[in-house]
Amino acid sequence: MSDKARGALVIIGGAEDKRGHMQILREFVAKAGGSHARIVVMTVATELPIEVGAEYVEVFESIGVADVRTFDVSSREAADRPSACKAIEQATGVFFTGGEQLRITTLLGGTRIDAALHSGHEQGLVLAGTSAGASMMSSTMIVDGRAETNPRIGIVQMAPGMEFIDGVVIDQHFAQRGRLGRLLSAVAQYPHHLGLGIDEDTAIVVTGSTLEVMGKGAVSVVDAGALWYSNLGHLREGDPLALHGVKLHILPAGYRFDLRERQPLKERSAGSGQE
Amino acid sequence: MSDKARGALVIIGGAEDKRGHMQILREFVAKAGGSHARIVVMTVATELPIEVGAEYVEVFESIGVADVRTFDVSSREAADRPSACKAIEQATGVFFTGGEQLRITTLLGGTRIDAALHSGHEQGLVLAGTSAGASMMSSTMIVDGRAETNPRIGIVQMAPGMEFIDGVVIDQHFAQRGRLGRLLSAVAQYPHHLGLGIDEDTAIVVTGSTLEVMGKGAVSVVDAGALWYSNLGHLREGDPLALHGVKLHILPAGYRFDLRERQPLKERSAGSGQE
Repeated sequence: MSDKARGALVIIGGAEDKRGHMQILREFVAKAGGSHARIVVMTVATELPIEVGAEYVEVFESIGVADVRTFDVSSREAADRPSACKAIEQATGVFFTGGEQLRITTLLGGTRIDAALHSGHEQGLVLAGTSAGASMMSSTMIVDGRAETNPRIGIVQMAPGMEFIDGVVIDQHFAQRGRLGRLLSAVAQYPHHLGLGIDEDTAIVVTGSTLEVMGKGAVSVVDAGALWYSNLGHLREGDPLALHGVKLHILPAGYRFDLRERQPLKERSAGSGQE
Repeated sequence: MSDKARGALVIIGGAEDKRGHMQILREFVAKAGGSHARIVVMTVATELPIEVGAEYVEVFESIGVADVRTFDVSSREAADRPSACKAIEQATGVFFTGGEQLRITTLLGGTRIDAALHSGHEQGLVLAGTSAGASMMSSTMIVDGRAETNPRIGIVQMAPGMEFIDGVVIDQHFAQRGRLGRLLSAVAQYPHHLGLGIDEDTAIVVTGSTLEVMGKGAVSVVDAGALWYSNLGHLREGDPLALHGVKLHILPAGYRFDLRERQPLKERSAGSGQE
């Protein structure tokens, strides 16, 4: 159960490249064992499991993975059948598609599949998720919220996530959808959590307590732990937030961040792999 | 020439309310003398000077200003005629409409009107500008740039502004158009300048070295002076920026900021007026 044994997390800000070099999806496959990987595409978030599942199967096969299967869950009963866990237990990587994060947590949370994912992850199972599949990774997740607004009370809805990573709140499609305001609204309420705003076609690869960025855009790390003043105490729904002293780091591909120390690492990683 | 004598600046992030309570435009009028104000609506930024001018004349008249006139300049020769300055010299407030900020600086910069605006401002003339009229206020201004992207080299075009306020770079329509990336790209190159991202229907009123926020949204103050690392030194056009340790303050209506100390003031102002 040490950090070494845990599987990597590949958390993607949505709209990752599926036709070109597919750098992010290739990295997920590499982490999960390359051509020997056994990949489960988990479509629970989407209401179009067949179409979305088929697309990812094609992608992963084109990358050279022989063993790819889709997995959909449409009821908690189904997620609680012992037989349902077999695919997870045999997988080396599970990929969560986009859709709605609340579908993931409400269908899987507390079921046997949830337990299988966690115990697998502790023993090296690599987990990846894009868009909704990214948001659900944390202990507290953003469910929904208004974009392109200044931070306000009540514009962001939070809920418990799947708890694969602690101490962060993740937002996706970050720069593309102007989501700084909603991520700030979230972390202002949970200043002990770091806000990670992941752009489209951009991912973080988390190993131990270090994350490394890859892909086209950047990750905005919003640290409200440094706040020396906010007006959160006495606001009503819709009121604008005042926040003094937020720390902001912009990390493009190759840059790393120490989640425990809440500090960017200065040196870039040499290659794609990292400890 | 002391701070006391200088006129206030009312710098508006665009799309200010012109039909409802018109709080921001009323504040400009109040600063410029209320019903005794002599307002010049400067339409040099827009290619529709007649329509835009007429709209603001109607607005300011509805607020109770008897003496409102529009002023358009379509050539540098016109801006350099001694007679052109008369309206400016007699005004108590000049309002710059939206349009293109480069039209303002290229048509007015260095002309007699430019000089008249500056000498008037030193003696109490109140200056206001919205959108393009906001951007041009600073010494270095954002001319254009990509929105909804992470910070990158070359996505933001800068040029000299009209120099009514030092030490800041202003962006407008800030949250609404997802402009964090471009403002960060700008201040990363000029870390001694504070980035002021002003939302729509939101304004800063600058008196002396203090700004106060008013309106519906917020002002995002981006302070790259705190940067402890950036990769700016060795990048090519289009490359993503890495920025470690940006300071970010979110200031909604009533909050104030000391531009000289680069610090938010904790206490909100009691009313609309301030020293």
